Order: sequence, then structure tokens, then C-alpha cells
Amino acid sequence: MPMTLDTVSTNKSHGGVQGVYRHQSRATGTDMTFSVFVPPHADGAKLPVIWYLSGLTCTHANVTDKGEFRKACAELGLIFVAPDTSPRGEGVPDDPEGAYDFGLGAGFYVNATQEPFARHYRMRDYIENELPEIVAGNFPADMARQGITGHSMGGHGALTISLRNPGRFRSTSAFAPIVAPAQCPWGQKALGGYLGDDRSTWKDYDACALIEGGARLPDLLIDQGDADANLELQLKTDLLRQACASAGMAATIRMQPGYDHSYPFVSTFMADHLRWHAERLG
Amino acid sequence: MPMTLDTVSTNKSHGGVQGVYRHQSRATGTDMTFSVFVPPHADGAKLPVIWYLSGLTCTHANVTDKGEFRKACAELGLIFVAPDTSPRGEGVPDDPEGAYDFGLGAGFYVNATQEPFARHYRMRDYIENELPEIVAGNFPADMARQGITGHSMGGHGALTISLRNPGRFRSTSAFAPIVAPAQCPWGQKALGGYLGDDRSTWKDYDACALIEGGARLPDLLIDQGDADANLELQLKTDLLRQACASAGMAATIRMQPGYDHSYPFVSTFMADHLRWHAERLG
Repeated sequence: MPMTLDTVSTNKSHGGVQGVYRHQSRATGTDMTFSVFVPPHADGAKLPVIWYLSGLTCTHANVTDKGEFRKACAELGLIFVAPDTSPRGEGVPDDPEGAYDFGLGAGFYVNATQEPFARHYRMRDYIENELPEIVAGNFPADMARQGITGHSMGGHGALTISLRNPGRFRSTSAFAPIVAPAQCPWGQKALGGYLGDDRSTWKDYDACALIEGGARLPDLLIDQGDADANLELQLKTDLLRQACASAGMAATIRMQPGYDHSYPFVSTFMADHLRWHAERLG
Repeated sequence: MPMTLDTVSTNKSHGGVQGVYRHQSRATGTDMTFSVFVPPHADGAKLPVIWYLSGLTCTHANVTDKGEFRKACAELGLIFVAPDTSPRGEGVPDDPEGAYDFGLGAGFYVNATQEPFARHYRMRDYIENELPEIVAGNFPADMARQGITGHSMGGHGALTISLRNPGRFRSTSAFAPIVAPAQCPWGQKALGGYLGDDRSTWKDYDACALIEGGARLPDLLIDQGDADANLELQLKTDLLRQACASAGMAATIRMQPGYDHSYPFVSTFMADHLRWHAERLG
């Protein structure tokens, strides 16, 4: 066990265990809370891991409560990890006006370089390096078989983390992701605030820019509701479609008629995504 | 439409519509909020209705968020109705000490006779009479095909409402119900507080007492976690088992190893219950 993990709660569900855990993070310099579902499994088995990154305003709890992933994970034998979306607690700076789209609940999966955010807002480090060590050390996880997904800001996180770490994730998907933060108000505010005005530093955190810069994934599954109020201004799914087409990168991008941006949308397609990941995780 | 219904929210989910609605209740003299999931269906179709009554501290939102019922309801063609657990708002008296197990969030599905609760705490009337009219008038509901279920205090509600209204519900189930409120602290506090000290008035609100008094259901499905911290003191599942055995009433009462009292338990067995109801609702 690489570091101390406090168990906040465990509940048996769908034959497995839904747990919530807390630890002191060296990446963020704060306590961090995350959830892990471990499906029923044979003693000594090592199971593939799905990372689910959440959207603006969320903690681990939103998808843990509303994601409807446990039945499919139990059937498919997948561990499901849901981290928080930002550092929190004493001394962690927030948006100066307390806005929902920056600061607490809105870490955008970056390593901030700008003050006062640079010390604690290191969600890239946390998700890419620290939390995988903890998951590997404390759960029956086969780290050679990882998939990643996420919702909205978390879809942005899933796409960019996977694109930056070729080969680490055998499968990548997203629900209603922000595909080009450099080209939408949410992303411009976040990347400007955390990274500063030099847009060359933003490219690592923009899925479309990464693909345009040569990063590739073997394939991709995206579901996007066509009644999503954020589609035109913030999510801009078509930019990802164009980037993948230009790059010759396989991508299944499905527009789902009548669906909005909420968990009733995410939960509808969750089992589909998990099956898609499981096929690729063996 | 028998009365005005305000739509609080609708979200497409699993091919149907998850809605939340508010109306002025004549039964409780307050605004009441409830949720309804209508699955995908042919134009003009009338669908069977499942009533889900929630437990202590809950509103409609707990099961709506965490119940994992929409996929099964969509597959089985069931409307799912989730009422609140008490009147709320200006002038509605609460537990004098603000306890979680009486007053707001803890209506126990009774018509209160004691002051200051008698005016607003009329959840029996609300669930048995008023809300069915609203559901029948506003949704594609076949009121000849109704089933009822609930969790904990709501399991008590489901059992007692069904037992008191023979023939109305073709199917009755419960998750971790309070089976004999007259014999447990939660129930004694609630029935004493709402109905007074004359225990003869409690019998209508006690599933075991109703069965002992001659009420019958064709059958019954109960799931109860054996790791439920409330089992021994409050829920007392064995009393229902004994009452059904003495009465010769069919009842499938399943002890589920390792499960507790939470929604991770309820959601695990939700689809099972919905299938069981659907078989009986045709």
C-alpha cells in the first residue's frame, strides 16, 4: 500500500462493493476523495479498470449515485474509479466570484501554472500519476488493462489524458465532452485562468489541438445529446468530428436525439460505453 | 386534467421521459412535488403504473436519482411514480427537536389525528386518493394495472396501503420495509405522535396487524439485507414472515447476504422487483 487510504464508506451493490475513500494527496496538497466500485470476482483475480472523470460542479458522488454503472460493471467484471474534479478544503483558492465553471469543482484536469492556483490545482498530476498508484496498490486492478471515459469537462479530461499517454488506455470514450476548450468560453476561462494567456501552453489540454498536433487513439466512442443546451457554445462536437476526419482517426460519434446534458442522459448510455470498453479490455 | 400540474423538469432517459412535477394538494394543504418516469410507448397506449414510496428523510429525488429503475421500466413498459414522504413548506410542523424520524420527511403514510399534525400530515389521503387522480389525468396510465413498492418507511406504506385496498394493486413488494410499526421505536414514535396513544387506531397502519386482522394479498415480494443496521430493532422482517405463515398468505421474503439499508442495496434488486410486478400486471 503506497500510502494511507481512509475508507469513508462501503456498500454492497450488485454483488460487488461500492466504496468511497479519502487520502492526503501529494499532487494537490489537500485531502482528496474518490470512489471505487469493485465487482464480484474470484479471489486473486486482477480486473480491468475504467476511469470516469466528472464534469463541472461534480464530486465523485454524482456519478456514484446517478451513473447506473454498477450492474454493467458487475456483469463485465470492471473496476470503476471516479475521482473528484478539483482540490478542495482550507486554503484552496476558488473562482473570485464563486462561479461554477472555475476553481472548486472545475479543475479541468490541468496542472495550473498561474497564481494563486499553481500550488493546489494539479489535477493532471493527480489523475495521471498519483491516483493510479493508489488504485494499483489498494484494489485488485490490472493496470495493463485500463479504459477512460468522462462527462463534459470530464470528457475533455478523458480525451486529453488518453491522447497525451499513448498506449496507456486501451479504450477511450466520452459523454458530451468539451472537445476544444481553446475554442469555447468554459475552456478559455479555465485555461486562461490556470495556464495564463500564452495559448501555446493550452495545446496539451485541448483534444482537437492534440489530434491536430499528431496525437492519435486507435478509436473513440462519443455520445452527445442533440438537445444539450451546451452543445453549440461549449461542447462543439463537430470540431472533434472534423479533427478525427482530417487525421484519419477512427471515431464513433453518435448524436442522440432528444437527450440533454444531465445524468439521465449519461446513465442511459453508460452500459453501452462499458460494454464497448470491456470488448477492448479483454 | 383534474388540477393544475407544474412541470419542474423533464429529461429524456432510457428512451422515455423522467419528469418532476409540483401541484397544490387538497389533501395536505401544501405544494407537493413528485416524479414520474414514462417509458417509450406507442401513441395512445395505456401503461401499467408502479408506485414507489420512499423512506425516512427522502423526497421523490432519492429514488429518482439513485433507484436505477428507468432501464427496467423502459424495457418492461412501466410508468414509475415517486411521491414525497411528507408535506413540506411554510406552516408545516416538524418534529419538535428536528429529528429525522418524525415530521418533515417522515409522514409514515398516515392521516394524522393529533395536533399540530392533523391539518397537513394526510399522506394516506394523498397517496390513496389525490395523487392517483392526478396520475390518471395527466399520464398515459392504465389504472386497472397498478403495482406498489417502497423502501423502509415506504415499504411500510406500500404494504399497508395495498393491504387496506384489496384488489387495487395487482402486485405488492418492498425493500427492507418496516413491517410492524407498532412493535418498533420508529413506528411507535410516529404512530403515537400522529395518531395518539390509543393503539387501536394504529392497526390500520401496521402490516402485520392488518394481516393478523384478516387482510390478505395474493402474494408479496420482499428483499431485506442481512447487514442492514436497522433490521433487528426497526424492521423485524421475521414478524412479517410469521404473520404471513400464520395467515397462510404467500410471501417471498428474501434475506440478501451482505446488503445494508442504502440505495446501493435498493438499486441492486430494483430490476428484479420491476420484472416481478410486470409479470403480474400483464
